[in-house]
Amino acid sequence: MSITGELTSALGPTKVLLDEPTLAAYAVDEAPVLDYQLPLAVVFAESVEDVQATVRACAARGVPLVARGAGTGVSGGAHASQGSIVLSLERMNRILDLNPDDETAVVEPGVVNADLNAAAAPHGLMYAPDPASYKRSTIGGNVATNAGGLRCAKYGVTRDSVLALGVVLADGSLIHTGHQTFKGVAGYDLTGLFVGSEGTLGIVVGVTVRLKYLPPEVHTIAAFYPDFRSAAAGVLAVGRARVQPAIMELLDGGSLAHLDAVHGSDLAARGAALLLIQTDGFGADAEAAAIRPLLVAGGAVVTMEANAEAEELVELRRSSRGVGDEDEYRVGEDVAVPRSRLVDYVAELEAMAVTYGVHLKVVAHAGDGNLHPTFWVDRPDSSVDSDALERLGAALDKSVTIALAMGGTITGEHGIGQYKLRWLGLEQKEPVRELQRRIKELFDPAGILNPGKAI
Amino acid sequence: MSITGELTSALGPTKVLLDEPTLAAYAVDEAPVLDYQLPLAVVFAESVEDVQATVRACAARGVPLVARGAGTGVSGGAHASQGSIVLSLERMNRILDLNPDDETAVVEPGVVNADLNAAAAPHGLMYAPDPASYKRSTIGGNVATNAGGLRCAKYGVTRDSVLALGVVLADGSLIHTGHQTFKGVAGYDLTGLFVGSEGTLGIVVGVTVRLKYLPPEVHTIAAFYPDFRSAAAGVLAVGRARVQPAIMELLDGGSLAHLDAVHGSDLAARGAALLLIQTDGFGADAEAAAIRPLLVAGGAVVTMEANAEAEELVELRRSSRGVGDEDEYRVGEDVAVPRSRLVDYVAELEAMAVTYGVHLKVVAHAGDGNLHPTFWVDRPDSSVDSDALERLGAALDKSVTIALAMGGTITGEHGIGQYKLRWLGLEQKEPVRELQRRIKELFDPAGILNPGKAI
Repeated sequence: MSITGELTSALGPTKVLLDEPTLAAYAVDEAPVLDYQLPLAVVFAESVEDVQATVRACAARGVPLVARGAGTGVSGGAHASQGSIVLSLERMNRILDLNPDDETAVVEPGVVNADLNAAAAPHGLMYAPDPASYKRSTIGGNVATNAGGLRCAKYGVTRDSVLALGVVLADGSLIHTGHQTFKGVAGYDLTGLFVGSEGTLGIVVGVTVRLKYLPPEVHTIAAFYPDFRSAAAGVLAVGRARVQPAIMELLDGGSLAHLDAVHGSDLAARGAALLLIQTDGFGADAEAAAIRPLLVAGGAVVTMEANAEAEELVELRRSSRGVGDEDEYRVGEDVAVPRSRLVDYVAELEAMAVTYGVHLKVVAHAGDGNLHPTFWVDRPDSSVDSDALERLGAALDKSVTIALAMGGTITGEHGIGQYKLRWLGLEQKEPVRELQRRIKELFDPAGILNPGKAI
Repeated sequence: MSITGELTSALGPTKVLLDEPTLAAYAVDEAPVLDYQLPLAVVFAESVEDVQATVRACAARGVPLVARGAGTGVSGGAHASQGSIVLSLERMNRILDLNPDDETAVVEPGVVNADLNAAAAPHGLMYAPDPASYKRSTIGGNVATNAGGLRCAKYGVTRDSVLALGVVLADGSLIHTGHQTFKGVAGYDLTGLFVGSEGTLGIVVGVTVRLKYLPPEVHTIAAFYPDFRSAAAGVLAVGRARVQPAIMELLDGGSLAHLDAVHGSDLAARGAALLLIQTDGFGADAEAAAIRPLLVAGGAVVTMEANAEAEELVELRRSSRGVGDEDEYRVGEDVAVPRSRLVDYVAELEAMAVTYGVHLKVVAHAGDGNLHPTFWVDRPDSSVDSDALERLGAALDKSVTIALAMGGTITGEHGIGQYKLRWLGLEQKEPVRELQRRIKELFDPAGILNPGKAI
């Protein structure tokens, strides 16, 4: 029997879809596609046992298995491999437990980030990591990429909120890592090893998360600057005041214009760059008051936004990368640099756009030194601009090598996936890469779990 | 040539000590000793090259190598193994870089925790993890055990402050893991794998840490309760108010009496249990004001301490475990339970002390549900009480099994070391232990790095 026949027989036809529209919908995530492949089937697991059965079937035949949540990744970590089964965890979307006194929740991997937050909020709690995709992306997907977000400047990334995992290994066995307590140091940190491993070491089927406190107060400050570098300097000024905002986002003029075009806002008319800051908690007022004069002294026009406007600005920022608008002509980056280099790096980006004749817009989780420049070129409709893709590629390469030269990384929060493998060797030396290959081999000797990704 | 001769020849006699007092001083850390062994030599490395030379010499001969910092561990992770070389990193104590704008520091492993904090403070920064041993323990040792401390309720444990590591592997090669930026998700989290691995996977020779902001304000609240369980209930009350203190420590009557005896304080006269809370940051005032009525309503006599008194109370707490006072008749534990079980667990502890006829005092990083009960028996001076050690052992076993039954862990922050290996199988199932053994084998195939510890 074929693998698809076997899976259908074992799981039933409602869990194993073979129709072409489904295969196409699950062939890729939201990253640029280098090597388009239709999967053989898409399995919609509804239980741990379904995942185990799928893994075992693939293991028995050496068939590649690509796990995915909502497919909102932007590095191609969930792109189908050749001849692969795609395993969707979307239907495993139950919040199994939420204990307000323990301040923890136990969830299936397919729970949408925003849904967990909605469940936690009535208890005065929140699940802190908030990638821009939080309304659609799943906790399992967030774990797979060690997702960041806006408020991780203060509250940390996914790893910092994950206490324990249930994981189906490459042989179909189920293990439990970590601890239900806030702290625990028994043995090696297997939990941390699985977080960010992009489905290459095992399939996460359960997640225990630590919840944080919903802040009683939030203050939003919008600082509009006459130029981007001054706004980047504002990030350092806030840091030097030793004030820790929950959110500190930087948007350049291109990003403001993009938002205006899409949403009808008037941001670009208010300045050439925006530094958007939220303080929260019992000290939100005092922190905002400490920050404001520093921004004004740095050349900003500062407005304390009323709640509705503030929330709208933050939501606009969340959507500023655009959704589904990336392809080979338009690529979003995810570099991070040490904070002291923010202004220098922003200047380098602006120079690159000119040098290579490409369009550029930049948003940044500036509090973390994590930048998302988007480079794009007009679609060449003739031979006039046939080198557009080469110029785009050169700009992307340059943005990465400059970040690395400043002590940065090629990926702050999106993951290596498939698309960024080309640059990984520039960041990590061969002995470190070899160690990772050997860890992969230890967990997945047949190499069936998401081959060609992450390392 | 013998291993000691080879090391002396390679490193010089000032770095390789063979005299018996030195061997004895470095044979153990501060944990109870199960199997006393004098090392063959103590190597005092002064550079990465010294560490590499030592590892290579041991690797060539299959000689066990036990790395240590200040030896303040309380699980026996730095106890010498039979026929081992002890490698002290104490002399590698330079702060190589401290960048106030990046909010990071790069340190050698032998830098004392308090020294890093002293260097960071003039810049308005702090290194957050603060184990009770912070005046003596080293960053390398803190990394090896993934040390916690008082303020990790708010600021996280060692893992949360470590960005990158330099590690000498079992073959003497040097690798660099992690990133100099706050965020970075390229490849597997090797940094997290080394943190807490107690020197069994590699020797940490360099650490890049993220610094946090020194709070502009600190408020200390001392809440004295008529009984221990009411104090434990106070922890839950603070949590339910969704206020996050920096420090939330719980001390029972036995701990207060111990402190009074050692320091001449009058704590026991003020109550039968103390809940000691520090709020910090711009919201410190407001948070303290929100907490205070909750504690009073729970039966506490609450004093807002003046700064000097407050600092003294916190320092008393830090020293409340006592120093060097543990042996086979007196054992400190390190369990953690989900916060909702704190009151139940405290009640169980009190019952155990009665059942087994042992002495008990308890301090707890209550904000994290992490408890340090100390059990002890009087030294039997005759056959009258010859079963004292058996009763002590039974109480210890019971304290662990009850914690596990409540969803807890056998070690919140001290590590497994050598002493807690006996209980590890109760917490982690065989497949998870086997995975760790295979990871150990991958990193250290000859098994020379701190054998018999951690996993």
